[in-house]
Amino acid sequence: MEKIRVGITGYGNLGKGVEYALENADDMELAGIFSRRSPEQINPRTSVPVYSMQQAEQMKDDIDVMIVCGGSANDLPVQTAQLAAHFNLVDSFDTHAKIPEHFSNVNEISKNSGKISIISAGWDPGMFSLNRLYSQAILPNGSDYTFWGPGVSQGHSDAVRRIEGVLNAKQYTIPSEEALNRVRSGEQPQLTVREKHTRECFVVAEKGADLDRIENEIKSMPNYFADYDTTVHFISKDEFEAEHMGIPHGGVVLRTGATGENQKHKQIIEYKLTLDSNPEFTAGVLVACARAAYRMNKEGLCGCKTLFDIAPSYLHPQSADELRKNLL
Amino acid sequence: MEKIRVGITGYGNLGKGVEYALENADDMELAGIFSRRSPEQINPRTSVPVYSMQQAEQMKDDIDVMIVCGGSANDLPVQTAQLAAHFNLVDSFDTHAKIPEHFSNVNEISKNSGKISIISAGWDPGMFSLNRLYSQAILPNGSDYTFWGPGVSQGHSDAVRRIEGVLNAKQYTIPSEEALNRVRSGEQPQLTVREKHTRECFVVAEKGADLDRIENEIKSMPNYFADYDTTVHFISKDEFEAEHMGIPHGGVVLRTGATGENQKHKQIIEYKLTLDSNPEFTAGVLVACARAAYRMNKEGLCGCKTLFDIAPSYLHPQSADELRKNLL
Repeated sequence: MEKIRVGITGYGNLGKGVEYALENADDMELAGIFSRRSPEQINPRTSVPVYSMQQAEQMKDDIDVMIVCGGSANDLPVQTAQLAAHFNLVDSFDTHAKIPEHFSNVNEISKNSGKISIISAGWDPGMFSLNRLYSQAILPNGSDYTFWGPGVSQGHSDAVRRIEGVLNAKQYTIPSEEALNRVRSGEQPQLTVREKHTRECFVVAEKGADLDRIENEIKSMPNYFADYDTTVHFISKDEFEAEHMGIPHGGVVLRTGATGENQKHKQIIEYKLTLDSNPEFTAGVLVACARAAYRMNKEGLCGCKTLFDIAPSYLHPQSADELRKNLL
Repeated sequence: MEKIRVGITGYGNLGKGVEYALENADDMELAGIFSRRSPEQINPRTSVPVYSMQQAEQMKDDIDVMIVCGGSANDLPVQTAQLAAHFNLVDSFDTHAKIPEHFSNVNEISKNSGKISIISAGWDPGMFSLNRLYSQAILPNGSDYTFWGPGVSQGHSDAVRRIEGVLNAKQYTIPSEEALNRVRSGEQPQLTVREKHTRECFVVAEKGADLDRIENEIKSMPNYFADYDTTVHFISKDEFEAEHMGIPHGGVVLRTGATGENQKHKQIIEYKLTLDSNPEFTAGVLVACARAAYRMNKEGLCGCKTLFDIAPSYLHPQSADELRKNLL
């Protein structure tokens, strides 16, 4: 069997996650890593060649699908657009409000290049979005709920680290069990921001820092913490390194709906992720989408797609016959 | 907006569920009910016309999609095949082992008629199958688990009712909390049939019947009960009618996988349904699939499909632009 040749652009946590994920995908092989850093600064786990971003275009006949692993704020709007001119590709663009704009840019470029781009793949946007769609389609009369965590929010951790006197910090978003249970009971509650999630910070402070001031600055920070009940724990550097180096995450998408005579029957759909590693799970979604991009392009399709536009069978290595026999 | 005109073939619990579900679908309307019984025996909730099965073919220009609500054992292999010659259609064929054969028959007929048939829609087969597919694609290194219930098994209830001295009976399939918790912990246990589910029967016996014999016949019944821990409760007709007339069901599909360096990170995907009404939920899936069948056929597609072959956006009433903006 000829393997799908995959390139990785960007070698941070997500790019490394994709490298690992490809080892679990028998029908794919890693053909190259592309980085803005100079190639000798990159140490991939395997003997895969490393190239500079400038070399990517020359490799367009050697890479079937590029998985673009940059950040959504600054990298992906530029990188995905550039690479879409030459490659089938997948990205995890996750700035929800800017997805329509990103889609429209990339769609035009991919249509011109005759390639497929799959954007906003991952879990939210991604598998969570997909579950919102399926659940609304099945239960049109109902309410949606998304809870995130327990897990690390990179943005909130960064915000705490920017406070004077903070050496290191990790912020966990915790869904409220009480709110979750109300939703699971089918009562369709209206929940405030404060009722749905709490925030927990583990902070390593500089010696002699004013801990009360730090705690106060965290708890009153607008947008990030002011609307939540936040707990702050000051811990040692050793404890931080022993307990808080992981990137776990997860969450729950629920839809509770009503059907039947006088809408008397409650119906509840729950999709839950419990992830030891957020980037490695996202990488799993990206790799499945890379398979889909390759297959759809082989069938002559082009343009920008999201998980909403992909028939599920494209994502799985087995044939349609095998899937019907084994999984339906 | 022109509404999608839907026909219902078969007016049992599922057909009635579809009638209710169509009331929650603003883009669709019920155009007719078709039954093997004579039309005057059917009392639909609404003023929809009722036809005999023989009249269906004459209505082929008045129905955009037929939802076929017969039983899998005897009705659907015949009815779906007949109707596929004239209609886009959806069925809930659920004899897992015979899906490839049913698919192949219906595919040929639908290709010839230039229509779309979507078979085996519902929750298992259906949404559970879809979650098995997505989860395997994302986490190739892992294990699948499906738990059914708590809920009513129609087949097991029927089996108990066939025992001499039994007036009425309902059988509930109960997933083992202990087994579920072991799976949720990520340990990837090997579970026997007995460890995964228990069975609970509520039986109304004839006056003077030998209850010990009935209980023994239930518990030792091969295929149905012998491999399970079964509890039998004898109750009065009144209690039965007060407490056991519903058709709740549900279940959980889990995949626990491993990713990353030395596969050290556990990743868990859980999809859970808690349904007050099994047939009404199935009906919701069928109606969403009817929308997809109509749209796919409008685009010139034909042949037999399953949920595996349907890009999710076809199922939801909103446009692709709206879905990206609102749900991604």
